[in-house]
Amino acid sequence: MASDKLELVFKKIDELATATAPNFNIIHDLYLLLILGDLASLYSDTHQMTDFLADQLTKLNASVDRHSLGKEPETELQLPDVIVAKYPKVYESKKKTILIYGHYDVQPPGEGWDTDPWTITEKGEDPDKKLYGRGATDDKGPVLGWLNALQAYQEAKVDIPVNLIFCFEGMEESGSTGFAEFSIANRALFEHVDAACISDNYWLTTKKPCLTYGLRGINYFNLTVEHAGVQLHSGMFGGCVYEPMTDLVILLSKLVDSQGRILIPGINELVDDVSKEEVEEYATIEFSTQDFQQTIGSDANIYNDPKETLMHRFRYPSLTIHGIAGADSSPDQTTAIYPKVTAKFSIRTVPSMDQETVSDLTINYLYQEFEKLGSKNTCTAKQFGETAPYWLASPDDSNYKAGKAATQKVYHTEPDLTREGGSIGVTLDLQKALGEKSIMLLPVGMSDDGAHGPNEKLNKRNYIEGSKLQGAYWWYFANPQS
Amino acid sequence: MASDKLELVFKKIDELATATAPNFNIIHDLYLLLILGDLASLYSDTHQMTDFLADQLTKLNASVDRHSLGKEPETELQLPDVIVAKYPKVYESKKKTILIYGHYDVQPPGEGWDTDPWTITEKGEDPDKKLYGRGATDDKGPVLGWLNALQAYQEAKVDIPVNLIFCFEGMEESGSTGFAEFSIANRALFEHVDAACISDNYWLTTKKPCLTYGLRGINYFNLTVEHAGVQLHSGMFGGCVYEPMTDLVILLSKLVDSQGRILIPGINELVDDVSKEEVEEYATIEFSTQDFQQTIGSDANIYNDPKETLMHRFRYPSLTIHGIAGADSSPDQTTAIYPKVTAKFSIRTVPSMDQETVSDLTINYLYQEFEKLGSKNTCTAKQFGETAPYWLASPDDSNYKAGKAATQKVYHTEPDLTREGGSIGVTLDLQKALGEKSIMLLPVGMSDDGAHGPNEKLNKRNYIEGSKLQGAYWWYFANPQS
Repeated sequence: MASDKLELVFKKIDELATATAPNFNIIHDLYLLLILGDLASLYSDTHQMTDFLADQLTKLNASVDRHSLGKEPETELQLPDVIVAKYPKVYESKKKTILIYGHYDVQPPGEGWDTDPWTITEKGEDPDKKLYGRGATDDKGPVLGWLNALQAYQEAKVDIPVNLIFCFEGMEESGSTGFAEFSIANRALFEHVDAACISDNYWLTTKKPCLTYGLRGINYFNLTVEHAGVQLHSGMFGGCVYEPMTDLVILLSKLVDSQGRILIPGINELVDDVSKEEVEEYATIEFSTQDFQQTIGSDANIYNDPKETLMHRFRYPSLTIHGIAGADSSPDQTTAIYPKVTAKFSIRTVPSMDQETVSDLTINYLYQEFEKLGSKNTCTAKQFGETAPYWLASPDDSNYKAGKAATQKVYHTEPDLTREGGSIGVTLDLQKALGEKSIMLLPVGMSDDGAHGPNEKLNKRNYIEGSKLQGAYWWYFANPQS
Repeated sequence: MASDKLELVFKKIDELATATAPNFNIIHDLYLLLILGDLASLYSDTHQMTDFLADQLTKLNASVDRHSLGKEPETELQLPDVIVAKYPKVYESKKKTILIYGHYDVQPPGEGWDTDPWTITEKGEDPDKKLYGRGATDDKGPVLGWLNALQAYQEAKVDIPVNLIFCFEGMEESGSTGFAEFSIANRALFEHVDAACISDNYWLTTKKPCLTYGLRGINYFNLTVEHAGVQLHSGMFGGCVYEPMTDLVILLSKLVDSQGRILIPGINELVDDVSKEEVEEYATIEFSTQDFQQTIGSDANIYNDPKETLMHRFRYPSLTIHGIAGADSSPDQTTAIYPKVTAKFSIRTVPSMDQETVSDLTINYLYQEFEKLGSKNTCTAKQFGETAPYWLASPDDSNYKAGKAATQKVYHTEPDLTREGGSIGVTLDLQKALGEKSIMLLPVGMSDDGAHGPNEKLNKRNYIEGSKLQGAYWWYFANPQS
C-alpha cells in the first residue's frame, strides 16, 4: 500500500518535473550581478529570484519566512534572504521532522557555452535528454526537485509523512556569507529537526546513484621567505645573496613527494587506520580507472587500483601547492631576484586529524627545515584564509537507511556510499547548528554535469527521478519498514 | 710636455663640461615614445635626438654617416640610425685608431622622481653637486663626455694623437635591435681599429674609479611539468593524481642550495681555477661588506669577506629562479591543481664555461632527476630567450694600460680592476665584429647613480673628470710612455 501511494506521487512528479523545467529560467544570477556591481538590477533581480521561491512555497501551503542577512560587509549591497519554509504550517508532533537545505544562487556563466546559459535548453533524446543552463545541477534543479515532490504529494492527495523545514540560501557560491551566523542565531528553528538532507553534490560516476557521508577538511597555509632588501639584478648579485626563491622551493620540496605522500612528520599518524570492512566497502563502489582518467583528462592517476584512488580521495589526506606570489609569473625573460616570495599550499584533512595539530606540525616542521638551511633570509609559515574540519556521518543511521530505501525504490539499485574529497562549508555550518543529528548528502546530478564550467547540465532523467528520490526519501524516513 | 698639453685640454674640459650639461635636455626618450606609440612625435623626436648628435659631431669636424637599421620588426616604426663619426675625416695611417661606443637612447622615466626627468637639474654643492635627469649617467652623460674631450682638444689646439671612430646607437635600452647585424654587415668600418672603449657602466663603489674587463654570461632556461589533463580541484583530486607543481618544486630544489652553490653535476668543474695572484688582486679592490649591505638593502649577503662577495659576483657562476608561470600567483585562497607549470631560471656563466655544455649538463640533469621521481607527468627542460657568453679581456694590454694611466692622471689613483656580474650584450656584439682586438669598459658614473630608477643622477665631478678621463685615455693610448 505504501508502494501504491508512492506510485501516485511518482506519477505526479512525472507530470510536474516535465512542466517545471522552464521555471529555471527566471532564477537570475545573483553572484554575477554582485561582481558586475549593477545595483539597480541587483535589487530587482535578487528579489525576483527570492520572490519566486517564496511564492512557490506559499502556493504549496508552506509557511514562508524570509530571514534578512543584512548587508554584504563593507558595501551597501543587501544580501539575499534565507528562505525558511515549513510544511505543514502547523507542526505535527506525531511526525518526524526533516530539514532540507538548498541554494538558489549560481556561479557566473563564464565563457564557452553552446547555448544561452540563462535559458534552460533541452537537447538530445530520451533517455539521454539533457537540460543545459547555469544552475541546472548546482543547485536550481535539485531545489526545484524538492518543490516537485511537495507539489506531487499534494496533487496526488497523499499525506506527507514528515514535517518539513526548507532552508534555501542565496549566497552559497560566494562562500555562504552570513549563513553560519544565521544558523547559530536561529538554532531554535531546528529544535524539532530529526535529520537533515542536502542535494548539492554529484554521483561519483555517470552510472550509479550514491549517498555521501563524508567530506575532507582543509587547512590552508602561506609560506613566505624574504629579506629586508630590494629587488636585485641576478647578474649583479646572483651568488652573493641569499635568494628567497631558492629557500622557498627547497622548503616546498620537503612537503610532499611526487606520489602525493605528505612528508611532514606526524601528519600521516593522525589518520584513522583502515579496517578490512572499510576496504571491502570501497570495492563495492562502481568506479573504474578509465572513468577516472576520463574525468581528469589524462593518465596522470597515481593508483591503478580504482579502490586506492577512491581511498585517497575519500579517506587519506593530500597536500597541494597552489602557487607562488611575489616572483615573476609572466612568460617573459626577466632577470630579477625577488625580495619576498609567498607560496600557498593546502592540506586536505580526514578523520581524525585535529586541525590545530595539523597546523602546528606543519608550521613547526617548516621552521625546523628553514633553520637547517642556515639562510639569512627570514621565513614565516602561517595558516591563511578559511579552514574547515573534515565531516563524517554514520551511513547506517535511520537517515541514510531512508536514503538507501528511496534509491532502491527509484533506481532499483543499492546506492554507492561515497565521500567527497573537497569541503562543503555549509554542511559544517548545519552540523554545528544540529549538533549530533544526522545530515545526509543526497545527490541528484551526475559526475559529468560540469557544475561550475560552461554547458552545465542536468540529465532530464536525473531531474525527474531525482524529484522522486527526494519524495521517496521523506516517505521512507517516516516508514522505514514499508 | 705631454702633461702640459693634457692640462690645456683639461682646462677646456672644465669650461665645456660645465657649459654642455644643459644639452642633456634636448635628447628625448625614444624608448618611451615607442611604448606610447606616438608615431608623429616619434619621428620628429627621434630625428631631433639623432640630429643633435650628428650635428654636434659635424660641427666638431668629424665625418658623419647615419646608418639606417630599417624598421622595428612587425611595425612601421623606423629604428633610430646608428651614427658613425670619424675624426679626423681623413684617416691618418701613422696614428692608431680607437673605436668609441655609446648610446643616445634612455630608459622610460618611471615613477618617483623628485625633479622633472627630462630637465637636467643641478642639486647640492661642490664637490658633491649632482646632475639629475633620465640618461644623466646612462648613457647621455658619458656620450657627451666624449664630445667634450673632442671639442677640448680642438679648442686647446692640441692634436688628437689617435684616429677616432664614434659609434652611437639609439636602441640599447631596447636590446640593441639591429645593432649586431649592423656591426657584422659593416665590419669594414672597424678594419683599422686597434682598440675599443665603452663608457656605459659604473664604478664598483662611490669612492674609486675602475676599469672593467669582464662580464658574466647568461644561459636562460624554461622548465615545464605538465600532464595532458585539465585544471583540477584539489579537494576532488588531491592525492590521486601526479601534481605538476609538486614535481616542479622538487626539480627546482635540486638546482641550487641556499648558499648559492649550483648542484648540477659538472657545472662547477667548468669554472677556471683561481690563482693566488687573482685573489691578491681582489684584495686590492676597495669594497666593504657594509657597502654591499647598503646596496642590497639588507644583511642577506652570503659572504662576510668582501673579497668572496666580489669573486662570486665577478668570477663564479650563479643560478637564480625567477618565477613560475601557470600556477596561481595571486594572494588569494584558491584550490586548484594546475595542469601545466613552467619555471624560469638562469645561470650566470664565467670563464671557461662553454654555453652549450652548460645547457646540455643542465637539461640532462633535470631529465635524469625527473626520471627518478617516477611521475606520470611529462617534463620539458629547454633553453629560452636570449643567452650570452661570458666576456673577458686582458687587463694588462695596451688598451687597459692607457686606461690606467688616464685614471692615474685624472684621479691620482690606480683604478680598481673589476668585472660585472651581468651581461652587456653590445660588448659581445662589438667583440664579434672586432675579433681579437681589445675592448675596455671605462665607467664615468658611480655605483649609486641609479641608472634605471627614479632620480637617476651623474655627479657633476664625474661628468667633468670623466670627460678628462676619456680625453686622457686617447692621449695615453697613443703615448704609453709619456
